[in-house]
Amino acid sequence: MKKKVTLKQIAKELDVSISTVSKSLRNSLEIGEETRLKVQAFAKFYHYKPNNIALSLKNRKTKTIGIIIPEIVHYFFSTVINGIEHVANENGYSVIICLSDDSFDKEVLNMEMLANGSIDGFIMSLSKETQFKGDFHHITEVINQGMPVVMFDRVTNDILCDKVIINDELAAYEAVQNLIDKGRKKIALVTTVDYVSVGKFRTDGYTKALIDNGLHFDENLIIKIENVDNCEITIAQLLQEKAFDAVFAVNELFAVTIIKIAHKMGIKVPEDLAVIAFTDGIISKYSTPTITTVSQNGAEMGAVAAKILIERLEAEDEESEEELEEIYKTVVIETHLIERESTL
Amino acid sequence: MKKKVTLKQIAKELDVSISTVSKSLRNSLEIGEETRLKVQAFAKFYHYKPNNIALSLKNRKTKTIGIIIPEIVHYFFSTVINGIEHVANENGYSVIICLSDDSFDKEVLNMEMLANGSIDGFIMSLSKETQFKGDFHHITEVINQGMPVVMFDRVTNDILCDKVIINDELAAYEAVQNLIDKGRKKIALVTTVDYVSVGKFRTDGYTKALIDNGLHFDENLIIKIENVDNCEITIAQLLQEKAFDAVFAVNELFAVTIIKIAHKMGIKVPEDLAVIAFTDGIISKYSTPTITTVSQNGAEMGAVAAKILIERLEAEDEESEEELEEIYKTVVIETHLIERESTL
Repeated sequence: MKKKVTLKQIAKELDVSISTVSKSLRNSLEIGEETRLKVQAFAKFYHYKPNNIALSLKNRKTKTIGIIIPEIVHYFFSTVINGIEHVANENGYSVIICLSDDSFDKEVLNMEMLANGSIDGFIMSLSKETQFKGDFHHITEVINQGMPVVMFDRVTNDILCDKVIINDELAAYEAVQNLIDKGRKKIALVTTVDYVSVGKFRTDGYTKALIDNGLHFDENLIIKIENVDNCEITIAQLLQEKAFDAVFAVNELFAVTIIKIAHKMGIKVPEDLAVIAFTDGIISKYSTPTITTVSQNGAEMGAVAAKILIERLEAEDEESEEELEEIYKTVVIETHLIERESTL
Repeated sequence: MKKKVTLKQIAKELDVSISTVSKSLRNSLEIGEETRLKVQAFAKFYHYKPNNIALSLKNRKTKTIGIIIPEIVHYFFSTVINGIEHVANENGYSVIICLSDDSFDKEVLNMEMLANGSIDGFIMSLSKETQFKGDFHHITEVINQGMPVVMFDRVTNDILCDKVIINDELAAYEAVQNLIDKGRKKIALVTTVDYVSVGKFRTDGYTKALIDNGLHFDENLIIKIENVDNCEITIAQLLQEKAFDAVFAVNELFAVTIIKIAHKMGIKVPEDLAVIAFTDGIISKYSTPTITTVSQNGAEMGAVAAKILIERLEAEDEESEEELEEIYKTVVIETHLIERESTL
């Protein structure tokens, strides 16, 4: 018996991208005719079976939710998963998790695999590469086939679906305002080089808070870190010049690293340098001093996403989906500041 | 169309455990005749379909590996998953993750769900409740149906399958020996109250190291912590009495908590108190002082587990499985001490 051929194998065989194969099979005019026909012929020869969920979805409930997240070594995503699991289990659903590893291809392949009858709907956060490429056809496809998708945290305006987010700009604004209220005047932003959606919003919030308070916006105080294991010299140099008295870091790893460098240099936290980090993780709670953070309420984010998805799935059961269709929600989860020793 | 009934629904309907339903359906004599027949009649009425992997396995490859782990907010398990993903992807396999949440029922349900055609084989670490109950029938069932299982870290001697472990006793022995070599004489063991397999082995290693070095074994120096958020008074009391000059903690959360309490009391780490923790996680790397740890090499553990599973799956393809069958491997991954500031 011939083995089932996958998108990936077709892509490899014809030396084209997975995205090209996927689009060719849906006869997308984005792909040149020659390639399109070649892919289609190859798929036919090998009896490639695309997902055909729409046909069977109504009668085949798996009572399983599929989660796709960029990475697992990340406290925020762990708390979101816990929130999803809790609500899912209460409602008799199981949960399957796949990692995109911040890769577009892995995200496409994982969605294809799960959509093939293993699950009833998706809860997902986009990979960095997907956001960078702006290619969301795999998600459109799944939604068009009648499978609901709820996006959280890293979402896109290009897809119409339910979304659960926080107001990253407002959260950043409030964190910086907190530093200003405590008398800090030179506040640095420590952020990543890549620009996933949330990174941009946090920078906007930082900038707005400075301007609203009549503080000077100094571009040199925006520090972009490429590799956290390799930033000591840059940070130390900036600290040496006493260029700032407070730091707003977009993640706790950056915050704890700065605190350690400051400690070595004899700069006291919080006296000489106040620190606030985005994401309330395990490091902030156990570092010395403990770190004031913006909590993203990951567990609530997950719980709300699961509730929305299950509601949609059960509405389909009652065949009242016409009413729900196209009325997508975007729920904004409130963030809050957890004050600890790094700003007292 | 009648919806597919699940093990869980049958269990709920008849008010028996999932394990009872599962065993009744396999006609196990462990279950009384009345219950057994009742479950079977109910399952028949609702057209319950048990897994029937063996029949279809040879021809239907999903090229997907199923992972079942107890929890996700745990750095060790994250690194194991990264190790599995890496080897799986290299070999063209996808990975699906399910959490047992340390619950026996969830482990059984997740295995049932995944074994139902979604994956080719399992990599798993047992839930605490499963270890405590000693009920492994769900694993036996999957193996008997011809689906390979590789266990890692939390394993059991009651199941014959491939296993990837570390030598927890030896690792604990070496950590305690390291403290003794540095002149420490009163070494406390800080451990959990529950006794999952690995906890017992680590205690054995601790005890053996003391005895081999002619040190007095004092039962009062074995501190069992039920809730890490609630142990401050106990620890502080023991530290007050200066009952020990070193600590071997079975996880880094215990270690960092002790360091924090010691710091508040003016006890210097490492001068007055040396600390070594099991599990090299993110806390140890970023705490002040950084913590010396026993690395469990999670990534390597995962990589080896994936290699073994894929080897077995591909051997099945070549229909040479008679040769491999029943020759199960247990691979012991080497641990090593990462020396940091808490013991210098």
